[in-house]
Amino acid sequence: MDTVSLSGKELAAAINADTKARAATLATGGPAPRLALVVANDDPASAWYVNSLRKAAERLGITCDTVELGADASAEAIRAELDARSADSATDAIMLQTPLPAGIGLDDVSSSIAATKDVDGVSPLSLGLLASNLDGFVPATSEAVVELLKHHEIPLAGRHVAVVGRSNIVGKPLAQLLLAENATVTVAHSRTTDLPSVTSAADIVVAAAGRIDLVTGKHIGEAAVVVDVGTNEAPDGKIVGDVEADSVRGKAAALSPVPGGVGPVTTALLMRHVVTAAENARRA
Amino acid sequence: MDTVSLSGKELAAAINADTKARAATLATGGPAPRLALVVANDDPASAWYVNSLRKAAERLGITCDTVELGADASAEAIRAELDARSADSATDAIMLQTPLPAGIGLDDVSSSIAATKDVDGVSPLSLGLLASNLDGFVPATSEAVVELLKHHEIPLAGRHVAVVGRSNIVGKPLAQLLLAENATVTVAHSRTTDLPSVTSAADIVVAAAGRIDLVTGKHIGEAAVVVDVGTNEAPDGKIVGDVEADSVRGKAAALSPVPGGVGPVTTALLMRHVVTAAENARRA
Repeated sequence: MDTVSLSGKELAAAINADTKARAATLATGGPAPRLALVVANDDPASAWYVNSLRKAAERLGITCDTVELGADASAEAIRAELDARSADSATDAIMLQTPLPAGIGLDDVSSSIAATKDVDGVSPLSLGLLASNLDGFVPATSEAVVELLKHHEIPLAGRHVAVVGRSNIVGKPLAQLLLAENATVTVAHSRTTDLPSVTSAADIVVAAAGRIDLVTGKHIGEAAVVVDVGTNEAPDGKIVGDVEADSVRGKAAALSPVPGGVGPVTTALLMRHVVTAAENARRA
Repeated sequence: MDTVSLSGKELAAAINADTKARAATLATGGPAPRLALVVANDDPASAWYVNSLRKAAERLGITCDTVELGADASAEAIRAELDARSADSATDAIMLQTPLPAGIGLDDVSSSIAATKDVDGVSPLSLGLLASNLDGFVPATSEAVVELLKHHEIPLAGRHVAVVGRSNIVGKPLAQLLLAENATVTVAHSRTTDLPSVTSAADIVVAAAGRIDLVTGKHIGEAAVVVDVGTNEAPDGKIVGDVEADSVRGKAAALSPVPGGVGPVTTALLMRHVVTAAENARRA
Protein backbone atom coordinates (compact mmCIF):
# COMPACT_ATOMS: atom_id res chain seq x y z
CA MET A 1 0.00 0.00 0.00
CA ASP A 2 1.20 3.48 -0.85
CA THR A 3 1.47 5.33 2.44
CA VAL A 4 0.42 8.96 2.20
CA SER A 5 2.63 11.44 4.07
CA LEU A 6 0.58 13.71 6.33
CA SER A 7 2.65 16.83 5.98
CA GLY A 8 1.93 19.68 8.37
CA LYS A 9 3.73 22.35 6.37
CA GLU A 10 0.84 23.55 4.19
CA LEU A 11 -1.55 23.72 7.15
CA ALA A 12 1.04 25.54 9.26
CA ALA A 13 1.62 28.04 6.43
CA ALA A 14 -2.11 28.74 6.14
CA ILE A 15 -2.47 29.26 9.90
CA ASN A 16 0.63 31.46 9.97
CA ALA A 17 -0.64 33.67 7.14
CA ASP A 18 -3.81 34.35 9.13
CA THR A 19 -1.88 34.90 12.37
CA LYS A 20 0.51 37.34 10.71
CA ALA A 21 -2.38 39.42 9.36
CA ARG A 22 -4.10 39.49 12.75
CA ALA A 23 -0.84 40.45 14.50
CA ALA A 24 -0.36 43.28 11.99
CA THR A 25 -3.88 44.56 12.65
CA LEU A 26 -3.21 44.57 16.39
CA ALA A 27 0.09 46.41 15.87
CA THR A 28 -1.60 49.25 13.98
CA GLY A 29 -3.77 50.12 16.99
CA GLY A 30 -1.22 49.52 19.75
CA PRO A 31 1.77 47.39 20.63
CA ALA A 32 2.45 44.09 18.85
CA PRO A 33 1.20 40.93 20.61
CA ARG A 34 3.70 39.94 23.28
CA LEU A 35 4.67 36.44 24.43
CA ALA A 36 6.72 35.72 27.54
CA LEU A 37 8.68 32.49 27.18
CA VAL A 38 9.83 31.40 30.63
CA VAL A 39 12.81 29.02 30.69
CA ALA A 40 14.35 27.29 33.72
CA ASN A 41 16.78 24.78 32.26
CA ASP A 42 20.04 24.54 30.33
CA ASP A 43 18.90 21.67 28.13
CA PRO A 44 20.20 21.92 24.53
CA ALA A 45 17.02 20.47 22.96
CA SER A 46 14.95 23.01 24.89
CA ALA A 47 17.29 25.83 23.78
CA TRP A 48 16.86 24.71 20.18
CA TYR A 49 13.06 24.72 20.53
CA VAL A 50 12.98 28.08 22.31
CA ASN A 51 15.08 29.54 19.53
CA SER A 52 12.71 28.18 16.90
CA LEU A 53 9.73 29.64 18.76
CA ARG A 54 11.48 33.03 18.95
CA LYS A 55 12.11 32.98 15.21
CA ALA A 56 8.53 31.92 14.47
CA ALA A 57 7.21 34.76 16.63
CA GLU A 58 9.50 37.27 14.97
CA ARG A 59 8.40 36.22 11.48
CA LEU A 60 4.75 36.69 12.46
CA GLY A 61 5.11 40.09 14.13
CA ILE A 62 4.89 38.81 17.71
CA THR A 63 7.24 40.24 20.33
CA CYS A 64 8.89 37.45 22.32
CA ASP A 65 10.52 38.00 25.73
CA THR A 66 12.67 35.07 26.76
CA VAL A 67 12.96 34.99 30.54
CA GLU A 68 15.87 32.80 31.64
CA LEU A 69 15.47 31.82 35.29
CA GLY A 70 18.37 29.34 35.27
CA ALA A 71 18.44 25.58 35.69
CA ASP A 72 18.51 25.86 39.49
CA ALA A 73 15.47 28.12 39.84
CA SER A 74 13.19 27.31 42.77
CA ALA A 75 9.49 26.58 42.39
CA GLU A 76 8.80 29.86 44.21
CA ALA A 77 10.93 31.82 41.75
CA ILE A 78 9.14 30.24 38.79
CA ARG A 79 5.73 30.88 40.32
CA ALA A 80 6.70 34.47 41.13
CA GLU A 81 7.70 35.10 37.50
CA LEU A 82 4.50 33.50 36.19
CA ASP A 83 2.39 35.49 38.67
CA ALA A 84 4.13 38.73 37.67
CA ARG A 85 3.64 38.09 33.95
CA SER A 86 0.02 37.09 34.57
CA ALA A 87 -0.56 40.46 36.26
CA ASP A 88 1.46 42.47 33.70
CA SER A 89 -0.88 44.15 31.22
CA ALA A 90 1.91 44.41 28.62
CA THR A 91 2.21 40.60 28.43
CA ASP A 92 -0.47 38.92 26.36
CA ALA A 93 0.66 35.32 26.55
CA ILE A 94 2.86 33.09 28.71
CA MET A 95 4.59 29.81 27.90
CA LEU A 96 6.60 27.85 30.42
CA GLN A 97 9.26 25.78 28.69
CA THR A 98 10.05 22.26 29.92
CA PRO A 99 12.07 20.54 31.31
CA LEU A 100 11.86 22.24 34.70
CA PRO A 101 14.55 21.97 37.39
CA ALA A 102 14.81 18.55 39.07
CA GLY A 103 12.03 17.92 41.56
CA ILE A 104 9.66 20.55 40.14
CA GLY A 105 6.66 19.27 38.18
CA LEU A 106 4.78 21.37 35.67
CA ASP A 107 1.72 20.96 37.90
CA ASP A 108 3.59 22.47 40.86
CA VAL A 109 3.79 25.83 39.13
CA SER A 110 1.36 25.94 36.18
CA SER A 111 -1.58 27.26 38.19
CA SER A 112 0.33 30.57 38.38
CA ILE A 113 -0.29 31.11 34.65
CA ALA A 114 -3.52 33.11 34.21
CA ALA A 115 -5.92 31.08 32.03
CA THR A 116 -6.38 34.08 29.71
CA LYS A 117 -2.64 34.01 28.90
CA ASP A 118 -2.06 30.25 29.12
CA VAL A 119 -1.52 29.73 25.37
CA ASP A 120 -0.28 26.15 25.75
CA GLY A 121 -3.24 25.21 27.97
CA VAL A 122 -1.13 23.67 30.75
CA SER A 123 -2.74 25.09 33.90
CA PRO A 124 -5.31 23.07 35.85
CA LEU A 125 -8.00 25.61 34.99
CA SER A 126 -7.23 25.42 31.26
CA LEU A 127 -7.33 21.62 31.40
CA GLY A 128 -10.61 21.77 33.31
CA LEU A 129 -12.17 24.14 30.78
CA LEU A 130 -11.22 21.59 28.12
CA ALA A 131 -12.70 18.74 30.18
CA SER A 132 -15.91 20.80 30.53
CA ASN A 133 -16.06 21.66 26.81
CA LEU A 134 -15.76 25.35 27.73
CA ASP A 135 -13.70 28.01 25.94
CA GLY A 136 -10.04 28.13 26.85
CA PHE A 137 -6.64 27.46 25.35
CA VAL A 138 -6.07 23.82 24.43
CA PRO A 139 -2.57 22.28 24.65
CA ALA A 140 -1.16 23.06 21.21
CA THR A 141 0.30 19.63 20.43
CA SER A 142 -3.02 17.88 21.05
CA GLU A 143 -4.87 20.45 18.97
CA ALA A 144 -2.27 20.05 16.21
CA VAL A 145 -2.98 16.31 15.93
CA VAL A 146 -6.70 16.91 15.44
CA GLU A 147 -6.16 19.83 13.03
CA LEU A 148 -3.63 17.83 10.98
CA LEU A 149 -6.09 14.93 10.61
CA LYS A 150 -8.91 17.30 9.63
CA HIS A 151 -6.67 19.11 7.15
CA HIS A 152 -5.98 15.79 5.42
CA GLU A 153 -9.72 15.00 5.50
CA ILE A 154 -9.41 11.95 7.71
CA PRO A 155 -12.77 11.46 9.43
CA LEU A 156 -12.85 11.09 13.21
CA ALA A 157 -16.53 10.59 14.09
CA GLY A 158 -17.20 6.94 14.91
CA ARG A 159 -13.57 5.97 14.25
CA HIS A 160 -11.50 4.17 16.87
CA VAL A 161 -8.38 6.15 17.81
CA ALA A 162 -5.63 4.69 20.00
CA VAL A 163 -3.48 7.28 21.75
CA VAL A 164 -0.21 5.85 23.06
CA GLY A 165 0.92 8.09 25.92
CA ARG A 166 -0.99 9.59 28.84
CA SER A 167 0.84 12.79 29.66
CA ASN A 168 -1.16 15.67 31.10
CA ILE A 169 -0.29 17.93 28.17
CA VAL A 170 -0.51 15.58 25.17
CA GLY A 171 -2.16 12.18 25.60
CA LYS A 172 -4.89 13.07 28.08
CA PRO A 173 -6.05 16.37 26.52
CA LEU A 174 -5.88 14.76 23.08
CA ALA A 175 -8.30 12.09 24.31
CA GLN A 176 -10.73 14.88 25.34
CA LEU A 177 -10.48 16.56 21.94
CA LEU A 178 -11.01 13.28 20.09
CA LEU A 179 -14.08 12.45 22.19
CA ALA A 180 -15.48 15.87 21.33
CA GLU A 181 -15.02 14.87 17.66
CA ASN A 182 -17.12 11.75 18.35
CA ALA A 183 -14.21 9.32 18.04
CA THR A 184 -14.02 6.22 20.21
CA VAL A 185 -10.78 6.69 22.15
CA THR A 186 -8.37 4.26 23.76
CA VAL A 187 -5.49 5.60 25.85
CA ALA A 188 -2.59 3.16 26.13
CA HIS A 189 0.75 3.66 27.90
CA SER A 190 3.84 2.05 29.36
CA ARG A 191 1.77 -0.19 31.64
CA THR A 192 -0.50 -1.43 28.86
CA THR A 193 -0.49 -5.21 28.47
CA ASP A 194 -0.03 -6.30 24.84
CA LEU A 195 0.24 -2.89 23.18
CA PRO A 196 0.25 -4.31 19.61
CA SER A 197 -3.17 -5.93 20.07
CA VAL A 198 -4.62 -2.71 21.54
CA THR A 199 -3.27 -0.43 18.80
CA SER A 200 -3.96 -2.90 15.95
CA ALA A 201 -7.68 -2.66 16.72
CA ALA A 202 -7.68 1.09 16.03
CA ASP A 203 -8.36 2.94 12.78
CA ILE A 204 -5.98 5.72 13.82
CA VAL A 205 -2.90 5.38 16.05
CA VAL A 206 -1.28 8.42 17.68
CA ALA A 207 2.20 7.83 19.09
CA ALA A 208 2.82 10.32 21.88
CA ALA A 209 4.94 8.62 24.48
CA GLY A 210 8.36 10.10 23.74
CA ARG A 211 10.07 6.80 22.96
CA ILE A 212 11.97 5.99 19.77
CA ASP A 213 10.53 3.05 17.76
CA LEU A 214 7.59 2.67 20.13
CA VAL A 215 5.15 2.06 17.27
CA THR A 216 6.23 -0.32 14.50
CA GLY A 217 4.51 -2.14 11.66
CA LYS A 218 3.33 -4.88 13.99
CA HIS A 219 1.47 -2.32 16.13
CA ILE A 220 -0.91 -1.22 13.41
CA GLY A 221 -3.77 -2.72 11.47
CA GLU A 222 -3.88 -2.75 7.67
CA ALA A 223 -4.58 0.72 6.27
CA ALA A 224 -4.37 2.44 9.66
CA VAL A 225 -3.60 6.15 9.87
CA VAL A 226 -0.58 6.84 12.06
CA VAL A 227 0.27 10.20 13.65
CA ASP A 228 3.73 10.63 15.15
CA VAL A 229 3.92 13.19 17.95
CA GLY A 230 7.38 12.17 19.17
CA THR A 231 10.40 14.46 19.02
CA ASN A 232 13.28 12.42 20.37
CA GLU A 233 16.99 12.99 19.94
CA ALA A 234 18.54 9.95 18.25
CA PRO A 235 22.10 8.84 19.18
CA ASP A 236 23.34 10.55 15.99
CA GLY A 237 21.78 13.85 17.12
CA LYS A 238 18.91 13.81 14.63
CA ILE A 239 15.34 14.50 15.78
CA VAL A 240 13.21 11.38 15.30
CA GLY A 241 9.65 10.46 16.25
CA ASP A 242 8.06 7.61 18.22
CA VAL A 243 7.22 5.68 15.05
CA GLU A 244 9.57 3.28 13.28
CA ALA A 245 8.74 4.69 9.85
CA ASP A 246 10.36 1.95 7.78
CA SER A 247 8.10 -0.86 9.03
CA VAL A 248 4.99 1.33 9.14
CA ARG A 249 5.38 2.66 5.62
CA GLY A 250 3.84 0.28 3.08
CA LYS A 251 1.34 -1.00 5.68
CA ALA A 252 -0.27 2.22 6.94
CA ALA A 253 -2.65 4.23 4.78
CA ALA A 254 -0.99 7.41 6.03
CA LEU A 255 1.81 8.55 8.36
CA SER A 256 2.76 11.99 9.60
CA PRO A 257 6.50 12.64 9.17
CA VAL A 258 8.95 13.81 11.84
CA PRO A 259 10.05 16.49 11.27
CA GLY A 260 7.44 18.28 9.18
CA GLY A 261 4.21 16.74 10.50
CA VAL A 262 2.68 17.65 13.85
CA GLY A 263 5.60 19.93 14.79
CA PRO A 264 5.04 22.91 12.48
CA VAL A 265 1.29 22.81 13.15
CA THR A 266 1.95 22.91 16.91
CA THR A 267 4.14 25.99 16.59
CA ALA A 268 1.60 27.66 14.30
CA LEU A 269 -1.24 26.99 16.74
CA LEU A 270 0.79 28.34 19.67
CA MET A 271 1.36 31.58 17.77
CA ARG A 272 -2.31 31.72 16.81
CA HIS A 273 -3.17 31.40 20.50
CA VAL A 274 -0.83 34.31 21.30
CA VAL A 275 -2.66 36.55 18.85
CA THR A 276 -6.05 35.38 20.13
CA ALA A 277 -4.97 36.17 23.71
CA ALA A 278 -3.86 39.63 22.60
CA GLU A 279 -7.13 40.25 20.75
CA ASN A 280 -9.11 39.18 23.81
CA ALA A 281 -7.03 41.44 26.06
CA ARG A 282 -7.53 44.48 23.79
CA ARG A 283 -11.26 43.80 23.71
CA ALA A 284 -11.53 43.43 27.50
CA MET B 1 -19.91 -19.23 35.22
CA ASP B 2 -21.09 -18.09 38.62
CA THR B 3 -21.30 -14.30 38.45
CA VAL B 4 -20.19 -12.61 41.65
CA SER B 5 -22.34 -9.66 42.79
CA LEU B 6 -20.22 -6.57 43.47
CA SER B 7 -22.24 -5.18 46.34
CA GLY B 8 -21.44 -1.65 47.47
CA LYS B 9 -23.20 -1.92 50.81
CA GLU B 10 -20.31 -3.16 52.95
CA LEU B 11 -17.89 -0.61 51.52
CA ALA B 12 -20.43 2.19 51.97
CA ALA B 13 -20.99 1.13 55.58
CA ALA B 14 -17.25 1.20 56.30
CA ILE B 15 -16.84 4.65 54.74
CA ASN B 16 -19.89 5.94 56.60
CA ALA B 17 -18.62 4.70 59.96
CA ASP B 18 -15.42 6.69 59.45
CA THR B 19 -17.31 9.76 58.21
CA LYS B 20 -19.67 9.69 61.20
CA ALA B 21 -16.75 9.59 63.64
CA ARG B 22 -15.01 12.49 61.87
CA ALA B 23 -18.22 14.53 61.80
CA ALA B 24 -18.67 13.91 65.53
CA THR B 25 -15.13 15.10 66.22
CA LEU B 26 -15.77 18.28 64.25
CA ALA B 27 -19.03 18.87 66.12
CA THR B 28 -17.30 18.75 69.52
CA GLY B 29 -15.09 21.74 68.63
CA GLY B 30 -17.63 23.80 66.69
CA PRO B 31 -20.66 23.47 64.42
CA ALA B 32 -21.40 20.22 62.58
CA PRO B 33 -20.21 20.00 58.95
CA ARG B 34 -22.71 21.77 56.73
CA LEU B 35 -23.73 20.90 53.16
CA ALA B 36 -25.78 23.19 50.92
CA LEU B 37 -27.80 21.19 48.42
CA VAL B 38 -28.94 23.55 45.67
CA VAL B 39 -31.96 22.39 43.65
CA ALA B 40 -33.50 24.07 40.59
CA ASN B 41 -36.00 21.53 39.26
CA ASP B 42 -39.27 19.82 40.13
CA ASP B 43 -38.20 16.41 38.86
CA PRO B 44 -39.53 13.51 40.99
CA ALA B 45 -36.39 11.37 40.57
CA SER B 46 -34.27 14.32 41.68
CA ALA B 47 -36.56 14.92 44.69
CA TRP B 48 -36.18 11.27 45.63
CA TYR B 49 -32.38 11.50 45.42
CA VAL B 50 -32.23 14.80 47.32
CA ASN B 51 -34.31 13.25 50.06
CA SER B 52 -31.98 10.25 50.28
CA LEU B 53 -28.96 12.57 50.49
CA ARG B 54 -30.65 14.56 53.28
CA LYS B 55 -31.31 11.38 55.22
CA ALA B 56 -27.75 10.12 54.68
CA ALA B 57 -26.36 13.46 55.91
CA GLU B 58 -28.62 13.41 58.95
CA ARG B 59 -27.57 9.87 59.92
CA LEU B 60 -23.91 10.90 59.75
CA GLY B 61 -24.20 14.13 61.75
CA ILE B 62 -23.95 16.47 58.76
CA THR B 63 -26.27 19.49 58.60
CA CYS B 64 -27.95 19.72 55.20
CA ASP B 65 -29.54 22.94 53.88
CA THR B 66 -31.75 22.29 50.87
CA VAL B 67 -32.00 25.45 48.80
CA GLU B 68 -34.95 25.26 46.39
CA LEU B 69 -34.54 27.81 43.60
CA GLY B 70 -37.48 26.52 41.55
CA ALA B 71 -37.63 24.88 38.14
CA ASP B 72 -37.67 28.25 36.36
CA ALA B 73 -34.58 29.69 38.05
CA SER B 74 -32.29 31.70 35.76
CA ALA B 75 -28.60 30.92 35.31
CA GLU B 76 -27.83 34.22 37.12
CA ALA B 77 -29.95 33.22 40.12
CA ILE B 78 -28.21 29.83 40.32
CA ARG B 79 -24.77 31.42 40.01
CA ALA B 80 -25.66 34.02 42.65
CA GLU B 81 -26.69 31.31 45.12
CA LEU B 82 -23.53 29.28 44.43
CA ASP B 83 -21.36 32.40 44.76
CA ALA B 84 -23.04 33.31 48.05
CA ARG B 85 -22.59 29.82 49.49
CA SER B 86 -18.98 29.75 48.26
CA ALA B 87 -18.34 32.96 50.22
CA ASP B 88 -20.33 31.91 53.30
CA SER B 89 -17.98 30.66 56.02
CA ALA B 90 -20.78 28.64 57.64
CA THR B 91 -21.16 26.47 54.53
CA ASP B 92 -18.52 23.76 54.18
CA ALA B 93 -19.73 22.03 51.04
CA ILE B 94 -21.95 22.70 48.03
CA MET B 95 -23.76 20.32 45.71
CA LEU B 96 -25.78 21.43 42.73
CA GLN B 97 -28.49 18.92 41.93
CA THR B 98 -29.34 18.08 38.31
CA PRO B 99 -31.37 18.39 36.13
CA LEU B 100 -31.11 22.16 35.78
CA PRO B 101 -33.78 24.34 34.14
CA ALA B 102 -34.09 23.93 30.34
CA GLY B 103 -31.29 25.67 28.46
CA ILE B 104 -28.89 25.81 31.41
CA GLY B 105 -25.95 23.42 31.34
CA LEU B 106 -24.03 22.40 34.43
CA ASP B 107 -20.96 24.00 32.86
CA ASP B 108 -22.78 27.35 32.59
CA VAL B 109 -22.93 27.67 36.36
CA SER B 110 -20.52 25.19 37.98
CA SER B 111 -17.54 27.55 38.00
CA SER B 112 -19.39 29.50 40.72
CA ILE B 113 -18.79 26.63 43.16
CA ALA B 114 -15.53 27.26 45.05
CA ALA B 115 -13.19 24.30 44.46
CA THR B 116 -12.69 23.93 48.23
CA LYS B 117 -16.44 23.26 48.64
CA ASP B 118 -17.08 21.45 45.35
CA VAL B 119 -17.66 18.02 46.90
CA ASP B 120 -18.96 16.45 43.69
CA GLY B 121 -16.02 17.78 41.68
CA VAL B 122 -18.14 19.35 38.92
CA SER B 123 -16.47 22.74 38.42
CA PRO B 124 -13.91 23.28 35.65
CA LEU B 125 -11.18 23.86 38.23
CA SER B 126 -12.00 20.62 40.07
CA LEU B 127 -11.97 18.71 36.77
CA GLY B 128 -8.66 20.35 35.85
CA LEU B 129 -7.08 19.45 39.19
CA LEU B 130 -8.10 15.85 38.45
CA ALA B 131 -6.65 16.06 34.92
CA SER B 132 -3.41 17.39 36.46
CA ASN B 133 -3.28 14.69 39.16
CA LEU B 134 -3.51 17.44 41.80
CA ASP B 135 -5.53 17.38 45.03
CA GLY B 136 -9.18 18.28 44.68
CA PHE B 137 -12.60 16.70 44.94
CA VAL B 138 -13.23 14.00 42.36
CA PRO B 139 -16.75 13.43 40.97
CA ALA B 140 -18.18 10.96 43.48
CA THR B 141 -19.71 8.51 41.00
CA SER B 142 -16.41 8.04 39.15
CA GLU B 143 -14.55 7.62 42.41
CA ALA B 144 -17.17 5.10 43.57
CA VAL B 145 -16.54 2.88 40.54
CA VAL B 146 -12.82 2.72 41.27
CA GLU B 147 -13.32 2.23 45.01
CA LEU B 148 -15.90 -0.52 44.45
CA LEU B 149 -13.50 -2.41 42.17
CA LYS B 150 -10.64 -2.03 44.66
CA HIS B 151 -12.87 -3.14 47.54
CA HIS B 152 -13.62 -6.35 45.65
CA GLU B 153 -9.92 -6.76 44.92
CA ILE B 154 -10.26 -6.50 41.15
CA PRO B 155 -6.89 -5.39 39.79
CA LEU B 156 -6.78 -2.39 37.45
CA ALA B 157 -3.11 -1.97 36.53
CA GLY B 158 -2.49 -3.21 32.99
CA ARG B 159 -6.16 -4.23 32.56
CA HIS B 160 -8.23 -2.94 29.68
CA VAL B 161 -11.31 -1.03 30.87
CA ALA B 162 -14.08 0.08 28.50
CA VAL B 163 -16.15 2.99 29.80
CA VAL B 164 -19.43 3.40 27.91
CA GLY B 165 -20.49 7.03 28.29
CA ARG B 166 -18.52 10.26 27.99
CA SER B 167 -20.30 12.68 30.30
CA ASN B 168 -18.24 15.41 31.94
CA ILE B 169 -19.07 14.14 35.42
CA VAL B 170 -18.93 10.35 35.02
CA GLY B 171 -17.34 8.88 31.89
CA LYS B 172 -14.57 11.40 31.31
CA PRO B 173 -13.37 11.81 34.92
CA LEU B 174 -13.60 8.04 35.39
CA ALA B 175 -11.22 7.63 32.45
CA GLN B 176 -8.74 9.93 34.23
CA LEU B 177 -8.98 7.95 37.48
CA LEU B 178 -8.53 4.63 35.68
CA LEU B 179 -5.46 5.92 33.82
CA ALA B 180 -3.99 6.99 37.17
CA GLU B 181 -4.50 3.36 38.27
CA ASN B 182 -2.45 2.24 35.25
CA ALA B 183 -5.41 0.74 33.38
CA THR B 184 -5.65 0.94 29.60
CA VAL B 185 -8.85 2.87 29.01
CA THR B 186 -11.30 2.99 26.11
CA VAL B 187 -14.14 5.53 26.17
CA ALA B 188 -17.07 4.53 23.97
CA HIS B 189 -20.37 6.35 23.50
CA SER B 190 -23.49 6.77 21.38
CA ARG B 191 -21.43 7.49 18.25
CA THR B 192 -19.22 4.42 18.66
CA THR B 193 -19.30 2.08 15.67
CA ASP B 194 -19.82 -1.56 16.68
CA LEU B 195 -20.03 -1.15 20.46
CA PRO B 196 -20.10 -4.93 21.15
CA SER B 197 -16.70 -5.45 19.50
CA VAL B 198 -15.19 -2.53 21.44
CA THR B 199 -16.53 -3.62 24.82
CA SER B 200 -15.89 -7.34 24.24
CA ALA B 201 -12.18 -6.63 24.01
CA ALA B 202 -12.11 -5.22 27.55
CA ASP B 203 -11.43 -6.99 30.84
CA ILE B 204 -13.75 -4.60 32.66
CA VAL B 205 -16.82 -2.83 31.22
CA VAL B 206 -18.36 0.18 32.94
CA ALA B 207 -21.84 1.12 31.73
CA ALA B 208 -22.39 4.83 32.37
CA ALA B 209 -24.52 6.15 29.56
CA GLY B 210 -27.91 6.38 31.24
CA ARG B 211 -29.69 3.98 28.88
CA ILE B 212 -31.62 0.89 29.92
CA ASP B 213 -30.26 -2.40 28.48
CA LEU B 214 -27.31 -0.65 26.85
CA VAL B 215 -24.90 -3.43 27.83
CA THR B 216 -26.06 -7.02 27.31
CA GLY B 217 -24.39 -10.43 27.25
CA LYS B 218 -23.25 -9.92 23.68
CA HIS B 219 -21.32 -6.80 24.70
CA ILE B 220 -18.94 -8.55 27.05
CA GLY B 221 -16.11 -11.03 26.78
CA GLU B 222 -16.04 -14.26 28.78
CA ALA B 223 -15.29 -13.61 32.46
CA ALA B 224 -15.46 -9.84 32.12
CA VAL B 225 -16.15 -7.67 35.15
CA VAL B 226 -19.16 -5.40 34.60
CA VAL B 227 -19.92 -2.26 36.61
CA ASP B 228 -23.35 -0.70 36.21
CA VAL B 229 -23.47 3.04 36.89
CA GLY B 230 -26.94 3.59 35.42
CA THR B 231 -29.90 4.74 37.47
CA ASN B 232 -32.82 4.84 35.05
CA GLU B 233 -36.50 4.83 35.82
CA ALA B 234 -38.14 1.81 34.16
CA PRO B 235 -41.70 2.07 32.77
CA ASP B 236 -42.93 0.30 35.92
CA GLY B 237 -41.31 2.99 38.10
CA LYS B 238 -38.47 0.81 39.36
CA ILE B 239 -34.86 2.09 39.28
CA VAL B 240 -32.80 -0.01 36.86
CA GLY B 241 -29.26 0.25 35.55
CA ASP B 242 -27.71 0.37 32.05
CA VAL B 243 -26.93 -3.35 32.10
CA GLU B 244 -29.33 -6.09 31.05
CA ALA B 245 -28.50 -8.24 34.04
CA ASP B 246 -30.21 -11.44 32.84
CA SER B 247 -27.98 -11.91 29.78
CA VAL B 248 -24.83 -10.69 31.54
CA ARG B 249 -25.23 -12.98 34.54
CA GLY B 250 -23.76 -16.39 33.86
CA LYS B 251 -21.26 -14.93 31.37
CA ALA B 252 -19.58 -12.18 33.41
CA ALA B 253 -17.20 -12.98 36.23
CA ALA B 254 -18.77 -10.21 38.29
CA LEU B 255 -21.53 -7.59 38.04
CA SER B 256 -22.42 -4.69 40.31
CA PRO B 257 -26.13 -4.64 41.12
CA VAL B 258 -28.55 -1.73 40.72
CA PRO B 259 -29.59 -0.76 43.32
CA GLY B 260 -26.96 -1.62 45.92
CA GLY B 261 -23.76 -1.39 43.86
CA VAL B 262 -22.18 1.91 42.84
CA GLY B 263 -25.05 3.97 44.32
CA PRO B 264 -24.46 3.59 48.07
CA VAL B 265 -20.70 4.05 47.58
CA THR B 266 -21.32 7.29 45.67
CA THR B 267 -23.46 8.69 48.48
CA ALA B 268 -20.92 7.59 51.09
CA LEU B 269 -18.06 9.26 49.18
CA LEU B 270 -20.03 12.49 48.79
CA MET B 271 -20.57 12.62 52.55
CA ARG B 272 -16.91 11.81 53.16
CA HIS B 273 -16.02 14.75 50.90
CA VAL B 274 -18.30 17.03 52.97
CA VAL B 275 -16.45 16.12 56.15
CA THR B 276 -13.07 16.52 54.44
CA ALA B 277 -14.09 19.98 53.20
CA ALA B 278 -15.17 20.90 56.74
CA GLU B 279 -11.89 19.62 58.23
CA ASN B 280 -9.90 21.60 55.66
CA ALA B 281 -11.93 24.75 56.40
CA ARG B 282 -11.38 24.43 60.18
CA ARG B 283 -7.65 23.95 59.60
CA ALA B 284 -7.36 26.96 57.27
